[in-house]
Amino acid sequence: MTAEEALRLLRIGAVEIIPQEDLFKKLQSEKKLTVKLGLDPTRPDIHIGHAVVLRKMRQFQELGHKVVLIIGDFTAMIGDPSGRSKTRPPLTLEETRANAKSYVEQVGKILITSDKERFELRYNSEWLENLGFKEVIKLTSLLTVAQMLEREDFKKRYSEGVPISIHEFLYPFAQGYDSVPIACDVEMGGTDQKFNLLVGREVQEAYGLEKQVAFIMPLLVGGDGQKMSKSLDNYIGITEEPSEVFRKLMKIEDPYLQTYFELCTDLTPEEIKEVMEKGGPVGAHRVLARLVAGAYAQELIPSRLDKAFYQSLGYSWDAHGHDQEGTAPVVQQAEARYYEIAHGGIPNEMPEVTLHPGELHEGKIAIARLFTLAGLTASNGEARRLIEQKGLRLDGEVLFDPKMEVALDRPRVLQRGKDRFVRVVPD
Amino acid sequence: MTAEEALRLLRIGAVEIIPQEDLFKKLQSEKKLTVKLGLDPTRPDIHIGHAVVLRKMRQFQELGHKVVLIIGDFTAMIGDPSGRSKTRPPLTLEETRANAKSYVEQVGKILITSDKERFELRYNSEWLENLGFKEVIKLTSLLTVAQMLEREDFKKRYSEGVPISIHEFLYPFAQGYDSVPIACDVEMGGTDQKFNLLVGREVQEAYGLEKQVAFIMPLLVGGDGQKMSKSLDNYIGITEEPSEVFRKLMKIEDPYLQTYFELCTDLTPEEIKEVMEKGGPVGAHRVLARLVAGAYAQELIPSRLDKAFYQSLGYSWDAHGHDQEGTAPVVQQAEARYYEIAHGGIPNEMPEVTLHPGELHEGKIAIARLFTLAGLTASNGEARRLIEQKGLRLDGEVLFDPKMEVALDRPRVLQRGKDRFVRVVPD
Repeated sequence: MTAEEALRLLRIGAVEIIPQEDLFKKLQSEKKLTVKLGLDPTRPDIHIGHAVVLRKMRQFQELGHKVVLIIGDFTAMIGDPSGRSKTRPPLTLEETRANAKSYVEQVGKILITSDKERFELRYNSEWLENLGFKEVIKLTSLLTVAQMLEREDFKKRYSEGVPISIHEFLYPFAQGYDSVPIACDVEMGGTDQKFNLLVGREVQEAYGLEKQVAFIMPLLVGGDGQKMSKSLDNYIGITEEPSEVFRKLMKIEDPYLQTYFELCTDLTPEEIKEVMEKGGPVGAHRVLARLVAGAYAQELIPSRLDKAFYQSLGYSWDAHGHDQEGTAPVVQQAEARYYEIAHGGIPNEMPEVTLHPGELHEGKIAIARLFTLAGLTASNGEARRLIEQKGLRLDGEVLFDPKMEVALDRPRVLQRGKDRFVRVVPD
Repeated sequence: MTAEEALRLLRIGAVEIIPQEDLFKKLQSEKKLTVKLGLDPTRPDIHIGHAVVLRKMRQFQELGHKVVLIIGDFTAMIGDPSGRSKTRPPLTLEETRANAKSYVEQVGKILITSDKERFELRYNSEWLENLGFKEVIKLTSLLTVAQMLEREDFKKRYSEGVPISIHEFLYPFAQGYDSVPIACDVEMGGTDQKFNLLVGREVQEAYGLEKQVAFIMPLLVGGDGQKMSKSLDNYIGITEEPSEVFRKLMKIEDPYLQTYFELCTDLTPEEIKEVMEKGGPVGAHRVLARLVAGAYAQELIPSRLDKAFYQSLGYSWDAHGHDQEGTAPVVQQAEARYYEIAHGGIPNEMPEVTLHPGELHEGKIAIARLFTLAGLTASNGEARRLIEQKGLRLDGEVLFDPKMEVALDRPRVLQRGKDRFVRVVPD
């Protein structure tokens, strides 16, 4: 493939490539490029939003380049020394290593992780632990306070009077410095990382290296328009059950469907248009859900989630997702289970929670607490509110008494809305 | 002396002692206190303004406590890595050591430097060179960006859009950290150092030490109301010739006379009032000049520049400085020379400058350049302007031609205004 062709392929879906000329030159040089992604080991789950960046990195791998994942263990082990953020306790060495292992397992669904020529994992404590005060002064001299306060999140917090601890100003430089020992050519990130990626360019220049290219991919919001979050049902983890992936994709609200096609598949703009117009919302949802659930059901997803892959699952493209049967068992099952649920049935398979006997009083437990322990509600208050709104079920029956007590002498099926189920079993 | 008496003595002249209760407790503890002053080795001269702080430290020494001078060599050797400040090139190790030596020689006029129990010199590179990134993060987590931007100079620069490099935010923490290894009890500084001294308290607390007391002394402005500066004639170095000290003190503008008495002598408020009222401006100037020039003419200045010391110079207090003769030769000479100049004569002693032969063209040099090389004017332009205003003289004659050329076949006396002389001698 020529440099022009490679660039044309890589540009697809990118928000910005800064500067694009530099990427072109690097591609022309025919050397193996080092493509970096920094990962925060305090949040070790990878969702379909991260996959947008990771799938682009897979393209670099397919072109013969090398991906380097940098685990930001150094700062994770420090935590938040200002004590302002209670959600950031310091991690131990063992925790960061365990989380990194989990990362590698998860990204192994998207990246080629078995080939040392194309994949490397590094911990930034390796170099940041030895960084002295003199180097920190050199790094921090590269930007002014006003420039740092231009970063979106700092700007917002500063203008709203939300405290910014000075050590937070050091982290963009630490991330930038990560690009020095690995001689990074291309750093990947979402739009929220643009500032930090550009700092990396300045840092490399100060250390006499060729500046990296900042490769910015779009951020994927949840199917409900909110930020993807584990506490909401908009979070699609890449290692989730195919039926769960299928179900959550079928729930994507119509205004976000186009974006999901663009960011989560390799269909061409013309193909997306065709599916959206001819398939209608239901048909389009179905094509998206089959493609993506079908892809992530594999051990290693295909290089391209395109029409050919869709057809390889046994679906005919012509029907645009209208009722028809595929031949890939994993999507068949996911789809079958989805419809079972969607038509009011209770699925056979669902997450199970074992209740600790200490939670029971004379064999019973308050209904609100039960839902909360099962993870279907965030609090007892929320559970009670949902019961009053007739939004929760027990063994298929709509609940109406928020103060009810439930006997746990047998497994019980809890249900929230149409499609979220947990089976609670006595210990 | 009781703790109460010591506190009463130390409080005299202080702007703020934060918190005073802590100082009282430390004095009560009867342990030997460590009293710190940080010095910037890039500006190795000590003037009568620094003496305000140093004389207070001498009082601590007289009470049995220990003074520790911290030479800020670590940051001086880094210079300004952002390259914004051209006036701060990095110093070499040799330069910082030479400047520190010069400091100790100069402060030896005020502090007791020969007794190791009461004086110590430390270089902060000793501990800052080994400070790692982790410690820097810990330190910088102690303050928020908004708090740092409350520091007067940062606040001003930020609001005026003058760039502040982020590494500048690190220096207050470095200075604060200097208080940790020496377990500082009291840090001294002028009002411009208040913020940094308070940072030292936070840093010590974070390292589990008893917090230091921030001891703030007033800043002395030049006798013309401007900041004391070597490029102006308002700068009184503590090792200058007694006649120069005398001359410059006689020039202090009347509105600043009271402040000079308060900050540079130990006369009581009543005595100052008496001198100012009965002596009138001329008499009061004379008393101040005799006291201070007489004091700094000594190898080690007396503990107290008070009435008794004035009398020890052979002057009678009653006359309030009206014409009379002292008996201390050094003040006699300084005074005699001052009047010689003041009455239009050319003094015998004055600074000499040797001119490099390369500056001469056919044995001559342009008059403006000559004044500038002699250090009496800041630029050739200023020299020409002053000649047009009839403000410069050559060998006693008023100059009128800014384009004149001067032969340097013999020593020539250059004069600016009434009282500034330089003798230029050919090489």
